[in-house]
Amino acid sequence: MAGEVYIAGAGMTKFGKSQLSLPELMTEAASKAILEAQVPAIDYIFIGVMNVEEFTGDSNIAAMIADRLGLAGIPSSRIETASSTGSAVFESAFYSIASGYHKNVLVIAGEKMTHLPTARTTKILAEVIDPQERNYGATMPALAAMITQRYQYEAKLSPEKMQAILSKVAIKNHYNGSLNPYAQFRKIISEADYFNSKWVAFPLRTYDCAPITDGAVAVVLTADKKLIRVSGLGHATDTMAVRHRDSLTSFRSTQLAAQQAYQMAKIEPKDISLAEIHDAFTSFEIIGLEDLGFFPPKQAWRAVEEGLTTLKGKLPINPSGGLKARGHPVGASGLAQIAEVYWQLKGAVEPARQVAGGRIGLTQNIGGLANNNLVTILERTDFYRATPVYWKPSFQARPLAENKTARGQLTSFSPDEKEGTLETFTILYTTPEGVPAPLTLGFVRFKNGQRIIARSQDKDLKIGQKVEVEKAGDFYYWRGVSSSLDIKKSLKWLEQKIGSSKNKGKDS
Amino acid sequence: MAGEVYIAGAGMTKFGKSQLSLPELMTEAASKAILEAQVPAIDYIFIGVMNVEEFTGDSNIAAMIADRLGLAGIPSSRIETASSTGSAVFESAFYSIASGYHKNVLVIAGEKMTHLPTARTTKILAEVIDPQERNYGATMPALAAMITQRYQYEAKLSPEKMQAILSKVAIKNHYNGSLNPYAQFRKIISEADYFNSKWVAFPLRTYDCAPITDGAVAVVLTADKKLIRVSGLGHATDTMAVRHRDSLTSFRSTQLAAQQAYQMAKIEPKDISLAEIHDAFTSFEIIGLEDLGFFPPKQAWRAVEEGLTTLKGKLPINPSGGLKARGHPVGASGLAQIAEVYWQLKGAVEPARQVAGGRIGLTQNIGGLANNNLVTILERTDFYRATPVYWKPSFQARPLAENKTARGQLTSFSPDEKEGTLETFTILYTTPEGVPAPLTLGFVRFKNGQRIIARSQDKDLKIGQKVEVEKAGDFYYWRGVSSSLDIKKSLKWLEQKIGSSKNKGKDS
Repeated sequence: MAGEVYIAGAGMTKFGKSQLSLPELMTEAASKAILEAQVPAIDYIFIGVMNVEEFTGDSNIAAMIADRLGLAGIPSSRIETASSTGSAVFESAFYSIASGYHKNVLVIAGEKMTHLPTARTTKILAEVIDPQERNYGATMPALAAMITQRYQYEAKLSPEKMQAILSKVAIKNHYNGSLNPYAQFRKIISEADYFNSKWVAFPLRTYDCAPITDGAVAVVLTADKKLIRVSGLGHATDTMAVRHRDSLTSFRSTQLAAQQAYQMAKIEPKDISLAEIHDAFTSFEIIGLEDLGFFPPKQAWRAVEEGLTTLKGKLPINPSGGLKARGHPVGASGLAQIAEVYWQLKGAVEPARQVAGGRIGLTQNIGGLANNNLVTILERTDFYRATPVYWKPSFQARPLAENKTARGQLTSFSPDEKEGTLETFTILYTTPEGVPAPLTLGFVRFKNGQRIIARSQDKDLKIGQKVEVEKAGDFYYWRGVSSSLDIKKSLKWLEQKIGSSKNKGKDS
Repeated sequence: MAGEVYIAGAGMTKFGKSQLSLPELMTEAASKAILEAQVPAIDYIFIGVMNVEEFTGDSNIAAMIADRLGLAGIPSSRIETASSTGSAVFESAFYSIASGYHKNVLVIAGEKMTHLPTARTTKILAEVIDPQERNYGATMPALAAMITQRYQYEAKLSPEKMQAILSKVAIKNHYNGSLNPYAQFRKIISEADYFNSKWVAFPLRTYDCAPITDGAVAVVLTADKKLIRVSGLGHATDTMAVRHRDSLTSFRSTQLAAQQAYQMAKIEPKDISLAEIHDAFTSFEIIGLEDLGFFPPKQAWRAVEEGLTTLKGKLPINPSGGLKARGHPVGASGLAQIAEVYWQLKGAVEPARQVAGGRIGLTQNIGGLANNNLVTILERTDFYRATPVYWKPSFQARPLAENKTARGQLTSFSPDEKEGTLETFTILYTTPEGVPAPLTLGFVRFKNGQRIIARSQDKDLKIGQKVEVEKAGDFYYWRGVSSSLDIKKSLKWLEQKIGSSKNKGKDS
């Protein structure tokens, strides 16, 4: 059919800490993909990398890689959408073939990160965050932790239950990664390993966060019919600031992208055989399961608890090990997800992690703190799938909520209105350079619906509590005002948890 | 016709030193374009910026701009191809509409540069250069100067003649810029101003080099028929290293891109009414005139001399003032060229610089040191143009030359083979941080065809002279070995020229 796009081949480097340079990693992945694809010529090269400038000190990467591959002359462009770059570069390559102007296009995505000190890498990664939230000391793990805390609150889970659920995601993904020769971590982890790992940003531990990784992936797309077709694409942005969103526990950008992808593929969430979900943080896998329509809101934790998302479960999630265990070279992860689903659908992965009978697979890739997300659907072309002419999708992104005032700017926050509600918080242990650890950050919401980010020196922390906000220096601080809350119990549990893993934790 | 793409509107900020941030500049340009376009909805936003990471310290710009425009939700991707980013982002947007998946796409390109110290900006811009050449201290002006010197040699021009030709390009573009309200420089310059301006890299002066600029441009592309259609696109890479090319005086990447664009539009160079050519350096405008097929190789200087490229000439070039006078916000320039041609073809510019009767216009945009170039052709849809069914283009990029061994790597250079020929050189006055000025750089070619970059401490500099190469410290140095050359005359002229503009030069 005209305009259809297929995958002709894929290639990938081992993920992890590598001695190879970014061009060397990309060349290795591209060579493998070209070898498999066996296309007569490459018409265009799309390069995905998130921040080559600051990670490696080079720019002009599109021309550099074309030259390195011996393909100087062939057009080449670089695409970037923060941590969803790997999917966005695939999307632009798709359009260039669907337009009819190109027949065979090489897509390469990679990132080189491990050579820099962790503090520097953390700073570079934090540049994707809304400047105001970044200014308060919020890192990616800090914001993810605040989202996780809020999820626990809205799903009415005990802290112990939430930790147990997160540990199950980490343990599953490390198990899957142990079976994937490309994965950065190939060791299974136990519940004890998980609970002994350090807090990064309460309630997220080292084992809840994807690692820093070097790696590259390549895919050859073609207009010629092949076994695996690209049947759905979706892409949506969201506000830069997390505090400007209608929901803290569901990503509208995923929902909108999923809606578009399902519509284009003319399928329902139930038609998906397996998925790669952007588990930069374990809680994001759970939120992804809900935003993609696999499970109802605030219910996906049950699926995790029941083992439905394991390799042998009803809906295997992250058979590759995910970002957590395969590793997360930021600009490459989206294309690594696509390569995994491609290989899974072809039946080409190691028997131990091969999902049997997969026909349609999906990837979900998050850019920044969920403000540039993509969903990609791949499908086997060797089975017949009937679609009614008047097909209408059942999956719909939620409508924009009534409480749009969350979007109000900090500058319009009236200093008279001091009292608000603490919506979520985190205690950040790995702080950005120059910010003393630990740092308590949270979102406070006022009666007019406005939400601000603030710091606190309180030890009495409970979501839903009434707080007073005051400016001190450059920052707003909150302080609890209600003594009727059951703060002592919450505090006791928190201190116990922190005490139990402090100093004896270890890195993954 | 299906798959056709039209321009619905364009907008631009004033170019120059601005107090506005990059998101503010982009928002201004986008708002103007959206206002003109009057499309019912935007389906996708493509953002072009070359190096937002190092210039501004932000990343995730695609999501940031969508949010700033109040379009959070709409998909957004950032495209980058060094200094041709403005054209590359237009190209990717074109494919996304031609594919049939989008109807109205917003393209925004911008760069914010003037807030950093010049040394820092020069360093960031030099990151696009081949690492080996960069390591020798080569900057963009240094490489452009070496290319200019070689052009003079191959075109058999005297140094005085070459300077006169370059001055004519600068004076013309400043004149055009004086008529353009968006231009950074709106003052005409005289021959005396030109010859009094400082050497940047001999034989290029301040007035030969595009300035450092802030600015943004936006265009709305649409599938609905409008007055101006995108009728040709071409895009080609070349080797990162200038020394690896078959020619130093003609850009194969321009020729290949032009060939594709003419082929797609089914036109010949003679059909072009006006063009915007990437005059980052005045000599590049002359080389562009030849590579685009407007004039034969090493003959375009005659066209400049005869005034054929002025506003009233046979083929007006850079009616906007070009990069030289409009300014060069690196990631934006390509889209600024496209906006200018769009407005020119519509007849929408100020009467004084309106090219009368333009039907088909062209832009040529250079990425890096001419290793990622694009050519874009726009056309009025309100006239009939017959194209034979068996149309074959007369314009062909030159075949890859016989002397491919220029590509040999420095590492395979045999130290036994000491003697070579000096192919070109420059004296660089504005050196990168840590490199003492002035710095003499050149390309030396050996009998086996291999070309290396080297430094020299010679004062006897003449293209074509026999030289000996020796390694000292990290670098190769050349030294003239022939005393029979007419070095004294060359040296005398050089010293005179340098002396005459030293200390009394002024910046543009």
